[in-house]
Amino acid sequence: MLVKSQIKLIRSLQQKKYRNQHGLFFVEGKKTVQELLDSDFKAHSIYCTAANLFAVSDDILTEISKAELDQISSLKNPNGVLGVFYIPKAKEVDFTDWIVALDAVRDPGNLGTIIRLCDWFGIRNLVCSQMTVDCFNPKVLQATMGSIARVNITYVKLVDFLKVSDMKVYGAFMNGASVYELELPQKGIIILGNEANGISTEVEASVTQKVAIPPYGGKTSESLNVATATAILLHEIRRG
Amino acid sequence: MLVKSQIKLIRSLQQKKYRNQHGLFFVEGKKTVQELLDSDFKAHSIYCTAANLFAVSDDILTEISKAELDQISSLKNPNGVLGVFYIPKAKEVDFTDWIVALDAVRDPGNLGTIIRLCDWFGIRNLVCSQMTVDCFNPKVLQATMGSIARVNITYVKLVDFLKVSDMKVYGAFMNGASVYELELPQKGIIILGNEANGISTEVEASVTQKVAIPPYGGKTSESLNVATATAILLHEIRRG
Repeated sequence: MLVKSQIKLIRSLQQKKYRNQHGLFFVEGKKTVQELLDSDFKAHSIYCTAANLFAVSDDILTEISKAELDQISSLKNPNGVLGVFYIPKAKEVDFTDWIVALDAVRDPGNLGTIIRLCDWFGIRNLVCSQMTVDCFNPKVLQATMGSIARVNITYVKLVDFLKVSDMKVYGAFMNGASVYELELPQKGIIILGNEANGISTEVEASVTQKVAIPPYGGKTSESLNVATATAILLHEIRRG
Repeated sequence: MLVKSQIKLIRSLQQKKYRNQHGLFFVEGKKTVQELLDSDFKAHSIYCTAANLFAVSDDILTEISKAELDQISSLKNPNGVLGVFYIPKAKEVDFTDWIVALDAVRDPGNLGTIIRLCDWFGIRNLVCSQMTVDCFNPKVLQATMGSIARVNITYVKLVDFLKVSDMKVYGAFMNGASVYELELPQKGIIILGNEANGISTEVEASVTQKVAIPPYGGKTSESLNVATATAILLHEIRRG
């Protein structure tokens, strides 16, 4: 059974303002909830329908009806389980491996896909400018497929962050050097920019090497989507 | 001014059944409409608001109000121009270069991104199983960013298509050979499968080489999204 205050709380977590106020966020789907339960994330409360019962402590588990789930879910077709978790403190950024940095990536699906790609390619640190969409946005989390549990995400003033690091800074630009020809080092920072405007002038000043994924053949689309560009660049970085 | 029959026609084109019945589809946005006007696609009618007037023949141009555009648009925030075009006949598939084949890719955003990737990487032929989402679906077209004008898309019974070709057939599988280690030829067919189930058993029987994008390091997400996997595989194919 859900009480009104629970419904109100969970619904409010669709907005960043309330997520930060309560220090909580939620994810949906049995698999993603289980991945977070198996990780360092701390669960606040888990809600599931009778068909999706979960092996967690009774203190935090609430069985609810399908109609109740509809009331708290952010999905058109809720899928049985919703878990509320505490927003963790970001760990210190580790400078011993490649770091992905995002400058104002706005689309939740793109950020979610990029987090999933970081996970796949073993990138443990993702640094986001403050204009980047919040990683605890339900649409971002839906696209991460649980990868959020394995990537340390930090929101920073990107220009300042780049100043303190002594790593080589790569930035994705249309007019950069071809990624086919660059020799990529064992570690570095790779920046991807906003969907419409790319990397901002302010951040560009800190880039030591511009890199591009050249199109093949004649006239093509103007650009690649930021998530597909990330896929290709991370693949190159790990290609060795 | 829009008349009722026009509103009814354009709205009906959101559904595949009516697109096929009328032999028409629509796209939105000044840039995409312009790209299609500049291509081999034949325009049926163009609708635009006063702020977005278009240099096309008066016979097909209708100036409409913002409120009228809202009535025919498939977007929450319509962006000034909507163009109705004739569905072209697919050209014969050209077997002299790489071909991308899709086995039941269902998500419109994924198909749109894959079309855009084909365009970027100079893949001129995209072959889709009949279970693949329709490429003239408005959500697909929104994600292609006009690339639809430069990729020849054919819907076929994939198993039969693969039988008549004498090209080597690559398929993306979790347990395939690492793409880092394969020598890729100058031409071939690369198949990507359904978001949840991958390549079907029936199609798998025609695959001559399974290929995988290996994850890096330890525990990661279970799989890559089909569009990001396509990005990496096309990049490898064109890497040379």
